Amino acid sequence: MPRIVYVNGRYVPWADASVHAEDRGFQFGDGVYEVIEVRDRALIDATRHLERLARSLGEIQMEMPMPQAALGHVFRETVRRNRVTDGTLYLQVTRGARPRDFLFPDEATRQTVVCIARPSSRAASDARAANGIAVKTLPDPRWARCDIKTVMLLPSSLAKEAAKAEGAKEAWFVDEAGFVTEGASSNAWIVDAGGRLRTRPVDSAILRGVTRTTLLDVISRLGLEVVEAPFTVAEAKAAREAFVTAATNIVTPVVAIDGTPVADGKPGGVSRRLRAAFHAVAERS
Amino acid sequence: MPRIVYVNGRYVPWADASVHAEDRGFQFGDGVYEVIEVRDRALIDATRHLERLARSLGEIQMEMPMPQAALGHVFRETVRRNRVTDGTLYLQVTRGARPRDFLFPDEATRQTVVCIARPSSRAASDARAANGIAVKTLPDPRWARCDIKTVMLLPSSLAKEAAKAEGAKEAWFVDEAGFVTEGASSNAWIVDAGGRLRTRPVDSAILRGVTRTTLLDVISRLGLEVVEAPFTVAEAKAAREAFVTAATNIVTPVVAIDGTPVADGKPGGVSRRLRAAFHAVAERS
Repeated sequence: MPRIVYVNGRYVPWADASVHAEDRGFQFGDGVYEVIEVRDRALIDATRHLERLARSLGEIQMEMPMPQAALGHVFRETVRRNRVTDGTLYLQVTRGARPRDFLFPDEATRQTVVCIARPSSRAASDARAANGIAVKTLPDPRWARCDIKTVMLLPSSLAKEAAKAEGAKEAWFVDEAGFVTEGASSNAWIVDAGGRLRTRPVDSAILRGVTRTTLLDVISRLGLEVVEAPFTVAEAKAAREAFVTAATNIVTPVVAIDGTPVADGKPGGVSRRLRAAFHAVAERS
Repeated sequence: MPRIVYVNGRYVPWADASVHAEDRGFQFGDGVYEVIEVRDRALIDATRHLERLARSLGEIQMEMPMPQAALGHVFRETVRRNRVTDGTLYLQVTRGARPRDFLFPDEATRQTVVCIARPSSRAASDARAANGIAVKTLPDPRWARCDIKTVMLLPSSLAKEAAKAEGAKEAWFVDEAGFVTEGASSNAWIVDAGGRLRTRPVDSAILRGVTRTTLLDVISRLGLEVVEAPFTVAEAKAAREAFVTAATNIVTPVVAIDGTPVADGKPGGVSRRLRAAFHAVAERS
């Protein structure tokens, strides 16, 4: 458990980290967030996370709560105060608190900003990647703007619980046409039967993962073939490899889909190679 | 602004009404709510609201936070302490607070319960009904389970803002087939060109409004013809009358849709009659 949480300009003990009961984030899901990897005390791809934060806020007509440099300071200070070497940094921004009304608060209402740093085990993450994970597919029930990283995450939580009930670590959402959209908290990839890397192009059905974006850079540097095109569950089951990407797990191989092994049921060589190459390309700050 | 808010067993001044920054309601939209009309100090249709609350909770695998009788006591005490004669009672229940994880907290995590009573002007509500309101239609971007009354309300907030920008008080969502689903915070009704009352049947695209349910009782008592069938925007524009129902406004006539007047652009007789008859049928407690 983190010891110190940043809430609206103050660093407070976790137990005292509170927001108002009429916060827009609590009553309306009216907030956005970012999760940034912390590795060797450095922030990974913070610039891209801040750019995406600004975009998410803009799409729901909110401003950045403070200049990017000031947010960066909050990030570093939160990491430092919690002595996190490896782990994650969580940032949430909401439209603030005021008596409940569907309409936006007036301009004087101060946005709510929460920042939490939490350690995690790099060894555990590596072990998970070495073993690979199982995924469960299910129909995508989410709203039409999954390109905005809002806190309306109940569908993803329910999907992860459904996956867990079948021994899977992640859920893959499937659109009405039968194509995988993305994972409940990750982007989905395959190395298809033809040997090409494939991931869904960004549209309003998926989040443009920062790890996804940087992995495209990695793939380019390695000279691998990649196509941004959707794939079906059947194509994923017939793929040479499958994996997921997210700031919390970088590249994690998928070794089973709905109980069907992917290839020989072991992490594939391309997935391993991409994971190993990632941090040499990603930004550190 | 209410003076006293119920939060997790305590009645606290509004300024002190807080929830944890890692509450599931704040981080995941993982909570449900109810809004109950308070009229002459009595709760309107509290039994049906509590039944719906129990259903919403069950659909997302949560329990009732306390027995219905105990919740009823909290309702009455919150109304009493705020000296509300006419207004609304708001209840929100979330899965509680704990370090962020998509998976559900363990059983020991206490649910969060917030209850807020706020006065509103019956005269203002009556004036709004006497004038009628304008609505704006827009594509329904919400998730697949709008039958669950979750706090994932950002799409409704954005829709109400879009409506406001065009001088409308409510937004009507329209599904891919062109049928109106419901209002951003109300159910949608028409008196169609044939003189029949019409409202969409309950499915996963709409909330089963308590006011909608009780109004069906009212309609039955009055011997009016009603059909639970969807209608298009074109049918609504060509209707004899249109109106919306919600606990906060009972029956409010719609006099314009996307700038097109409904009939003569004035509240219709059926809408007025239903509004006048409502409280003689609704439960008071």
